Formats: sequence, structure tokens, C-alpha cells
Amino acid sequence: MPADVRSRIEAVQERTGFVPNVFLALAHRPDEFRAFVAYHDAVMERDSALSKAEREMIVVATSAANDCLYCVVAHGAILRVRAKDPLIADVLATNYRNADLTARGRAMLDFAVKLAIEPQRIDDDDLAELRAHGFDDEDIWDIAAVTALFALSNRLAHVLALRPNEEFHLMGRIPRDAEA
Amino acid sequence: MPADVRSRIEAVQERTGFVPNVFLALAHRPDEFRAFVAYHDAVMERDSALSKAEREMIVVATSAANDCLYCVVAHGAILRVRAKDPLIADVLATNYRNADLTARGRAMLDFAVKLAIEPQRIDDDDLAELRAHGFDDEDIWDIAAVTALFALSNRLAHVLALRPNEEFHLMGRIPRDAEA
Amino acid sequence: MPADVRSRIEAVQERTGFVPNVFLALAHRPDEFRAFVAYHDAVMERDSALSKAEREMIVVATSAANDCLYCVVAHGAILRVRAKDPLIADVLATNYRNADLTARGRAMLDFAVKLAIEPQRIDDDDLAELRAHGFDDEDIWDIAAVTALFALSNRLAHVLALRPNEEFHLMGRIPRDAEA
Amino acid sequence: MPADVRSRIEAVQERTGFVPNVFLALAHRPDEFRAFVAYHDAVMERDSALSKAEREMIVVATSAANDCLYCVVAHGAILRVRAKDPLIADVLATNYRNADLTARGRAMLDFAVKLAIEPQRIDDDDLAELRAHGFDDEDIWDIAAVTALFALSNRLAHVLALRPNEEFHLMGRIPRDAEA
Amino acid sequence: MPADVRSRIEAVQERTGFVPNVFLALAHRPDEFRAFVAYHDAVMERDSALSKAEREMIVVATSAANDCLYCVVAHGAILRVRAKDPLIADVLATNYRNADLTARGRAMLDFAVKLAIEPQRIDDDDLAELRAHGFDDEDIWDIAAVTALFALSNRLAHVLALRPNEEFHLMGRIPRDAEA
Amino acid sequence: MPADVRSRIEAVQERTGFVPNVFLALAHRPDEFRAFVAYHDAVMERDSALSKAEREMIVVATSAANDCLYCVVAHGAILRVRAKDPLIADVLATNYRNADLTARGRAMLDFAVKLAIEPQRIDDDDLAELRAHGFDDEDIWDIAAVTALFALSNRLAHVLALRPNEEFHLMGRIPRDAEA
Repeated sequence: MPADVRSRIEAVQERTGFVPNVFLALAHRPDEFRAFVAYHDAVMERDSALSKAEREMIVVATSAANDCLYCVVAHGAILRVRAKDPLIADVLATNYRNADLTARGRAMLDFAVKLAIEPQRIDDDDLAELRAHGFDDEDIWDIAAVTALFALSNRLAHVLALRPNEEFHLMGRIPRDAEA
Repeated sequence: MPADVRSRIEAVQERTGFVPNVFLALAHRPDEFRAFVAYHDAVMERDSALSKAEREMIVVATSAANDCLYCVVAHGAILRVRAKDPLIADVLATNYRNADLTARGRAMLDFAVKLAIEPQRIDDDDLAELRAHGFDDEDIWDIAAVTALFALSNRLAHVLALRPNEEFHLMGRIPRDAEA
Repeated sequence: MPADVRSRIEAVQERTGFVPNVFLALAHRPDEFRAFVAYHDAVMERDSALSKAEREMIVVATSAANDCLYCVVAHGAILRVRAKDPLIADVLATNYRNADLTARGRAMLDFAVKLAIEPQRIDDDDLAELRAHGFDDEDIWDIAAVTALFALSNRLAHVLALRPNEEFHLMGRIPRDAEA
Repeated sequence: MPADVRSRIEAVQERTGFVPNVFLALAHRPDEFRAFVAYHDAVMERDSALSKAEREMIVVATSAANDCLYCVVAHGAILRVRAKDPLIADVLATNYRNADLTARGRAMLDFAVKLAIEPQRIDDDDLAELRAHGFDDEDIWDIAAVTALFALSNRLAHVLALRPNEEFHLMGRIPRDAEA
Repeated sequence: MPADVRSRIEAVQERTGFVPNVFLALAHRPDEFRAFVAYHDAVMERDSALSKAEREMIVVATSAANDCLYCVVAHGAILRVRAKDPLIADVLATNYRNADLTARGRAMLDFAVKLAIEPQRIDDDDLAELRAHGFDDEDIWDIAAVTALFALSNRLAHVLALRPNEEFHLMGRIPRDAEA
Repeated sequence: MPADVRSRIEAVQERTGFVPNVFLALAHRPDEFRAFVAYHDAVMERDSALSKAEREMIVVATSAANDCLYCVVAHGAILRVRAKDPLIADVLATNYRNADLTARGRAMLDFAVKLAIEPQRIDDDDLAELRAHGFDDEDIWDIAAVTALFALSNRLAHVLALRPNEEFHLMGRIPRDAEA
């Protein structure tokens, strides 16, 4: 394993306490690993009008539309942590239409899920709907970029039949003060 | 535009004679541009048991399954050039089941198209089918990686309503000796 | 609320520690409440060759196919308890094809999910497939009855936008010895 | 066959002149038979703002959406009798959009058929649409309960490949005065 | 109305006792009327290895797959007469998988319904399946031609919201000796 | 081959420079050949408020929705010639939602594609939408007739796995003045 790949994995392990399985799965192709990680950071870590929790909501809702086990469970955990909400991931993983969302949040997920599963039906009316809810062109690009990246990621996970680490299933479910 | 982005675009222009619209569309987000190009090169340019023409076949067939105008027309052109076949792209763009394929080629596209549009239905039987046609784990990864990358790419193109450059429509359609 | 309805609800509360929301939702129609509970007990509590955990697997997999929040979360909890497995419900809730199942278990869920979402395509071949995996006519009826009952239940929950009790989200996730 | 089951079947035979096949099919599971019949009567026989003919319209339209032979033919017959209309069942069995319906009747069937085949897409907008056509919460529950009960019933009939009695095919087709 | 169109309609009326609504609907475009009738006769009246009843079975099953009211009811009537079977049309109109068919008959309808609703998925395997059931190239063409003609016919009837004549609903339902 | 069939084919060859494969494919059934040609001419050559280019747009968009290789490539060529536009066919063949259309043109293709692939969902609202864009009853019939005829034609082409003549792939792609 090249040093930069190993070092990136070790950094994750240090921060998270374990190595998410997706890193090991991609490490055998160092160039693809680097590109994936670079893409992920560019989209998920950038300074955006969409909060990190909102971006994780998109990941969970679109990965659920694709029935992707790894992404739903791993990013469901991250969403619980980011949103400080132990229940939200289960709702989005089952049916985002049941979530307590603002009209803006619902429009964001309607668009993302449509782009995930019926990309050919996206047209100007869909963009106009987002703009009517206050999203500007940069925001729309962010929604699209997150959705598109996980369209890629879901498919790799499906081919690998990638299992989420056990740690993800419980992460963020127990309120901090209950743990203490 | 950052110098490395500009320089990459100029290199393409020099080689191809024009700047494919996708480069300009992505350039406003340099980090995503770099990651996309790195991913593209890692997957499409790598030394693989799948020929470059085969990888373009996957791009055209899966992009057609997503009705993606930019990718079908631009990569259809590249496929005509790579396969030295003026007709193949129109067939794959309409219905890959009508293409003159070996059983191996048909299995490759059956898998890729299923992964593109019904990723949740992929299971061990699909991988076994690929192996029965002589694909090993690295080959399967290549098929999956091409399909996954264009699952991403198709969705960005749909949101941008990206138009292919006019040059692509005719590229590779006229046999070289007819042109000379 | 009629006495028999109230007494049934109190019995559940005593056993479980809380009143699952579905009971309150149905209680305003006592005759339908009684029929639902009678049907539920006849199918889910009967002495059957299918274990109670297997029947809950059918409930979770088919309710997930219908994206039914209440049934996926509530019966996911019951499944974790019945199967003594903290992870199984998240897998079945996302994609039963990723679960570690015997060939028999996979055939059972393939049939149940097909019956849930494409009942019109069920024919003799599907029954023959179940029999080839050792299910007899009574077992097939049990699979069908569980699936059919939750086809009903999912639809009522969808119209009510029924929310699962918070208790369900965590139930069965923490191993007993960790809790003690 | 337990006495209460037999007696219920005999009562139907006396009223109808024959024993509908569904009764014999369910009789081998007396507890499920009793629960099914109780549920059926609670939903189909209750005093409701929806007429019995309207409830049968829901049964026929949603069972047709599920291609359920027994329910379409048997309840088509009952609908002809209840609506005193020899043609209506054939229309609803083929395409409810072709039926001569009031706007209210069309909204009722649009909702019922959506709940039958795409329950996960039901949301507040669908309920608001029903209310705009004058349905109150009890009426909505009735529409949902009929649809849900036959979601169950259709699936049992499909697994049994249940055939309608020959009598149903002609029942209600010939006007009484023509018969006399 | 041109004389040849009128004379054709009068011939049908004389034979059938009424003018099927489709004739009047098409008569305002005499050239299309003539082409439709010529195509119909060429396909449905030709001397073929497929009996006329088998051809009507294809019409009813594929028109049912398209939920076409006029074609299902009108050709259901013709099928009852041709097959001398008062029940067969209701079965095929609801779900051809429930019909009592030979393996050959089932293969014929599986192919026809697939061609009707998923023509793009037809490939050599489908033709091989038909040949394995004894259909030769002329027979396959007949199945395809009937299906294709009613793909056209169904769409015209849908746009016209064409209603079947009342006479069709009862035709062929009452055995001749019962009538006498 | 009957003289009238041969003579029709020779006329096409004289005008076009080659014999489109569909003519040879249908010639073995002279009666069906004659009816098809008569229907085609009645619909495609009639004096209509829809231009011939508009009718070819309908053919290409609906044949693309059916993934029909022959019709997309052959009629794409005719469309390029009729519309004097070398790019339009590739756009409509991939995704008509990306074409530069007037609102009227978009409404025409929305209706035609819906009629092609979901005919059972057509209702009065669809016709009202067309009328709101200025189409009268004769125009609506023309749109429907073109769509219906190619619903037939696509299915015959699929069963034959009919290949377009090579000439079609390039026809109309090179502007006349560039050719001269």
C-alpha cells in the first residue's frame, strides 16, 4: 500500500477509532483511491451554503433510494452525529417523505432522489423549483455533486457487497449525557 | 482559472482540436475538476485487460440507459474512433442488445447496464455470470469503475443540460480513406 | 375506548414498557382494531415451522420494499430481539440481498418481496422454487400470510404517516451483557 | 371445519346461492378465516359515508391494478349488483380512468390505486386532494381501509391462484326485467 | 363518408347486428380507415397456423397489458365466441398467467405481452424460446404482427377514450343451448 | 414478389438511392406490406398542420423511447434532411427533453412519448394540455396516428432485429455546401 494511502487511512482511524471498510476496499487501486478521496473531500468538506448535515441527508436519502447497505448505514451514522439527532437517519433510510423537513429541505431531497434514480427526467422545471425554495446555482451544484458522487459510490459498494463496520450501526444513537 | 486546470484544458484542445464542453462546465470548481479528471484518467487510461474501446462501449451503453445527451454523443464519437467503426456508437446508443457482440461482450454490457440502472439488484449471480465469461476480479472492478464514474458524470451532465460540441456528432463517422 | 381494546393495549404496555403507536392509531375503530389484532396473532403467534424471527424477517424485508417507516423501525426492533442479532434489521431494511442468508432464507425473502411488490407476477414457478428449498404448503401459506398482512399494515401506516415510538430505534441494538 | 366457520359459509351460500371459492380456500385456517371475515365485515359492511357500491368500486379498481383474477371477477359481480349497472365493472377492471366518474369519484380512485401500487409515494398532498373533494378523515380512513384489506386479499388470491366461481362472471350483467 | 367505407361498415353491421364504435371513430379519415381495415384483415383473417381464437387471445392479453378498454371488451367478446368459452376473456383480461394454457399457449402470450410492453428487451433468447415450443418463423411473425397491430390500435382507442358498444359486454357469455 | 410490391420498392430505390431494409423485411407478406405502406403514406404524407419534420420528430422521439434501432437511425436520417438540421436527430434519439423546442413542440413530444410508453395513463388532462398549446382535434389525431403507427413499426423491427442500412447513419449530417 503506497505511503500516502496508508497515511490517509491512519488519519481516519485516529479520528474515528476504526477504519471504515470502504477505505480498505478501495486501497488496492491507489489512483482510484486518491481520486475518490479527493472528490469526496472536494464535495463533502468544502465551505458551502449547505451544512454538512444537509449533505449527509442527501447521501442517506439517495443511497436509500439505491438500497445501498454500506452507504446507508455508514452515512446514517455520520448524519446522526452531524445533526445531533438519533432518529433522523432511520427516517431518511426508510422514506424521506416521512421526515420532518422544511419545505426547502423537502425540495432539496425531492430533487436529489429524482436525480439519483431518474436522472433523465430532470429538466428546467426541477431547477426552477429549487430556485423557488431559495437555492442558488452554487447550492444546486452542491446538491447535484453530492448526489452524483454517491451514485458512483453506491455502485462500487454494490459490486463489492460492501458491509458496514459494526461500529456504524450504533454510532450517534445514544445521547452523550446518557453515555456519560 | 487555476494554471493547472487551464493547462489541462489546453492539452486536450491541442490533442482534439477543440475544448469539449464538459471541461469548461467543471472548471468553475477547480477541486472537483481535478478530482474528476484524476478519476477519469485512473479508470479510462489505465493499463487494463479491457481495451479502451471496450471501456467506451460501457460508457455509451450505460449513458444511453440514462438518456444522457452529452455522454452518449461525446463518448459515441470517441468510441467510433477507438473501435474504428463508424456504426457501433449509434447501435449502442439506441439498444446494446442489437449490437454484434461476442457472448463475453454481451455479458459485460448486460452487467454494466444493470449496475447503471438497477444497482440494488446486483448480487453474486451477476458476478458468477461475468466470471463464467472469463472476467477476473480486476476486470469486474474495471467494468464497475467505468459504470460508476459515468453514473456520476451522467448526473452532472443532466443537471447542467450539457450540450455536446458539434464536432462530436460527425467525428469518426467518415472512414479515413474517404476523408483523404 | 371499549374495555377489551383498552385491556389489550394495557397488556402490550405491560409486556413492552410502552404503547406502540399503531395500537393508538387503530383504536378509534374498535371493530377494525379487533380484527387486525386477531389477524396479527393468528399469523404471527401461531405454532409454525417458520420461527418467529423468520416471520419478522419477512415483515422487515417486505415493509422495506414498501418504504414503510413504522413497520421497518418497529418490526426491525422486534427482529433484533427475536433473532438476538443487533445488525440484521439494518441489513434487511436496506437490501435483503446483502443479508447473510441460507439459500432457504434467501428463497423465502425473494418470494415474499416479489409477492409484496409484484403480486401479479407470482406463478407456479415461484411455488416450485419454494418447494425445492423445502417449504411445504403450510409454510408457503405462512410466508404469504405474513406478507399479505403487512401489505395491509404498510398501507394503513402510510396513510397515517405513522411514526415509530422512539423506543424502537434503540431496542435490541445493545447486547444484554453490555447493558448489564 | 369448526362449527362457526361452517355456519358462516352456509349463511353465505343461502344468501348467494353458492359458496364463493375464497371461503373454502381460507377455511383450512380457522383463526385466519375468522379474522379475515371480521375485518371484511368491519370495513365493507359498516355504516359509512361511502356507499357500498363505492367501496366495491375501490375493490375492483385496486384489484385490477394488481391483476387479481378472483377479486376482479367476484367483486366486479358484486359491484354490478350494488351499482345496478351491468357495464361499470368491466370499465373499472380495465382502466378506471375511462369510467364515467364525478371529480370526487375520480379523486377517490386515484388515491386508492396509488395507495395500492405505490404506497410509499402517498404524502400530505394526496390527503389534501381528497379533502378538497369533500372527503373527511373518516372517509379517507374508509378508502384506505378498503384498499389495504384488498392489498392483503389480492396477495392471498395470487398465491392460491384462486379461481372465481363461474356464477360471478354473469351475475348482474342481465337486467332483471330482461330476465323475468 | 366514401362509398367503400360506408359499404364496409354496412357489411360489419349485417354480420354482427351493430356497428362497432371503432369503425365510426376511424371513418373520418378514410385513408387511415382503409389502411387499418386492410392491415386488420391481412393479420387477423389470413390462413395461419395460429387459430383465430389464438389470435384473439393475443389481442386480449396485450390490450389488457395496455389497459385498453375498447379492445379488451370488444375482442374479449370475439374471443368468447371464437373459443366457445364464456370465461376465457375475463381471465386473459385480468391476468393471462392465471389462464389454463398449454405450455405452448403460455409461451405465446409471454412473448406477446413482453413485445407489447417491453419491446426493447426482446432478443434472440425470446425467439429461441418460441421455437422450443414449436413455433416456426411464420408463426412468430403472426404473433408479432397481431401484437404490433394492437399496439397501434390500443393507442388510437386511448386517445379517443373509445367506449365499447354495450352489446360486446354480454356477447358470448351465455351458452347457445341455454339461450335456446 | 408481386409486381406492385416490387414497383413500390423500385420507386423508393430510385428516389433514395438504396432500398431501406424495412421494405425487404415486409415484402414476404405482400398484404401486410401493402397495408403498412398505405398506412404510412396516409399518416406521414398527408397534408397536415404538422410539418413533415414535426412528424419525423415524433417518430424519432417515440422510437427512442422504445429503443428501436432501425426506426431511430433511419428516421433520424430523414429528420435531419427534412429539418435541414444535422444535430437534431441525435438529441431526440437520446433525450427529447434536451432539444431546443418551443413550448408547443415540447408539449407535442411529451404527449407522444407518454402515448408511446404509458398509453393507459392518457386522459382528458393530456388532451387539454395539447389544446392549450394550440393543437386542434385534427392535429391531436395526427400526433396520435404517427405515434401509434410507429408503436406498430417499432415492434416489428424489434422482432426482426432489423438493422438500418449503413447509408442512414451519415445521411443529412454534412451540410450541402460542405459537400459541394
